[in-house]
Amino acid sequence: MIDLSRLARQIEFLVEVDKLKQVVRQTWLMDRSRRENDAEHSWHLAMFALLLTEHAAEPGIDLLRVIKMVMVHDLVEIDAGDTFAYDAVRAQDKDAREQLAADRIFAILPPDQAAEMRSLWDEFEARRTPEARYAAALDRFQPILHNYYTQGKAWQRHGITSDQVIARNRHIAEGTPDLWSHVESLIQDAVEKGYLQPGPGK
Amino acid sequence: MIDLSRLARQIEFLVEVDKLKQVVRQTWLMDRSRRENDAEHSWHLAMFALLLTEHAAEPGIDLLRVIKMVMVHDLVEIDAGDTFAYDAVRAQDKDAREQLAADRIFAILPPDQAAEMRSLWDEFEARRTPEARYAAALDRFQPILHNYYTQGKAWQRHGITSDQVIARNRHIAEGTPDLWSHVESLIQDAVEKGYLQPGPGK
Repeated sequence: MIDLSRLARQIEFLVEVDKLKQVVRQTWLMDRSRRENDAEHSWHLAMFALLLTEHAAEPGIDLLRVIKMVMVHDLVEIDAGDTFAYDAVRAQDKDAREQLAADRIFAILPPDQAAEMRSLWDEFEARRTPEARYAAALDRFQPILHNYYTQGKAWQRHGITSDQVIARNRHIAEGTPDLWSHVESLIQDAVEKGYLQPGPGK
Repeated sequence: MIDLSRLARQIEFLVEVDKLKQVVRQTWLMDRSRRENDAEHSWHLAMFALLLTEHAAEPGIDLLRVIKMVMVHDLVEIDAGDTFAYDAVRAQDKDAREQLAADRIFAILPPDQAAEMRSLWDEFEARRTPEARYAAALDRFQPILHNYYTQGKAWQRHGITSDQVIARNRHIAEGTPDLWSHVESLIQDAVEKGYLQPGPGK
């Protein structure tokens, strides 16, 4: 016998999270036509997770949990908005804004599923498991790729320098050392090509 | 030792599939502000798959394979374009267009991964496994929900009738009988509210 009130909460949640398609990020699409939204970004990250598993720092990670984490990792931005990786001012109250959002959004679900989603999001944020470190590394790697292939479009709009990119993204190495090596060569190449300003910020 | 040519192909594929964010569907976002694209749709379906597993026709399905299928199921539309579910003319050469697209797009990957992605897409299309029937059911259920919550926006633009919605989506019952029951009541309600024209098409 189907529990209709349970199904109603699941559907209410699935309707609510449609709003993730409206949360616009600083990342530009590869063809520079417009900025990316969080729903597209989450799908793209899931593709990264699936295809780059062999580069995770630790073998034998649980890919399903990684993909679940990347699917839910930005849902809090429905309320809290996107905080640009290099925005030190908005970073100050980011945690508080996102905790409130998580409290509201996950509670739409039946309690067992609310707890599972919250736990996935907490795990992603804490970066204490191999799965979370890999997922968080991809979440930093993907926008760097987009920046590189758009000739540094978001970096230049915000006057970001190579030192800032390295400092903010170094934790990629904890989740996937292979990709961090690749990022280091992309950054060097981006500086040489003039996509990214060298050295420390002003 | 990292195989750089293998990583290069993986990254080339991940850059290529960014184009899925540009493939616009007939489905409208829940707030009616604009039409949805395939990347957002694929992420949304993965959320459906994760949260509605208990409603799958057969217990014990492999959720990771379901999610992989929904992530890749529309990649062929990068070349072949979106074919509206009720478009009988474009449906005629849909298979041929999509096979060509699959041949090109998956071949960007290293051969083992190309074979895995192609196999997932073939499985989804054939609907012969419980996982594929569940994934395909969600792929039909999600646009029906969007139609219902946007007061029938896409149905009305194309003059779709309730008989057409039932005929085109009846296979939802094979993947998830619970959701098909729900769809039947949504269709009835949509007709009563004037979101959807009753009866057979003209």
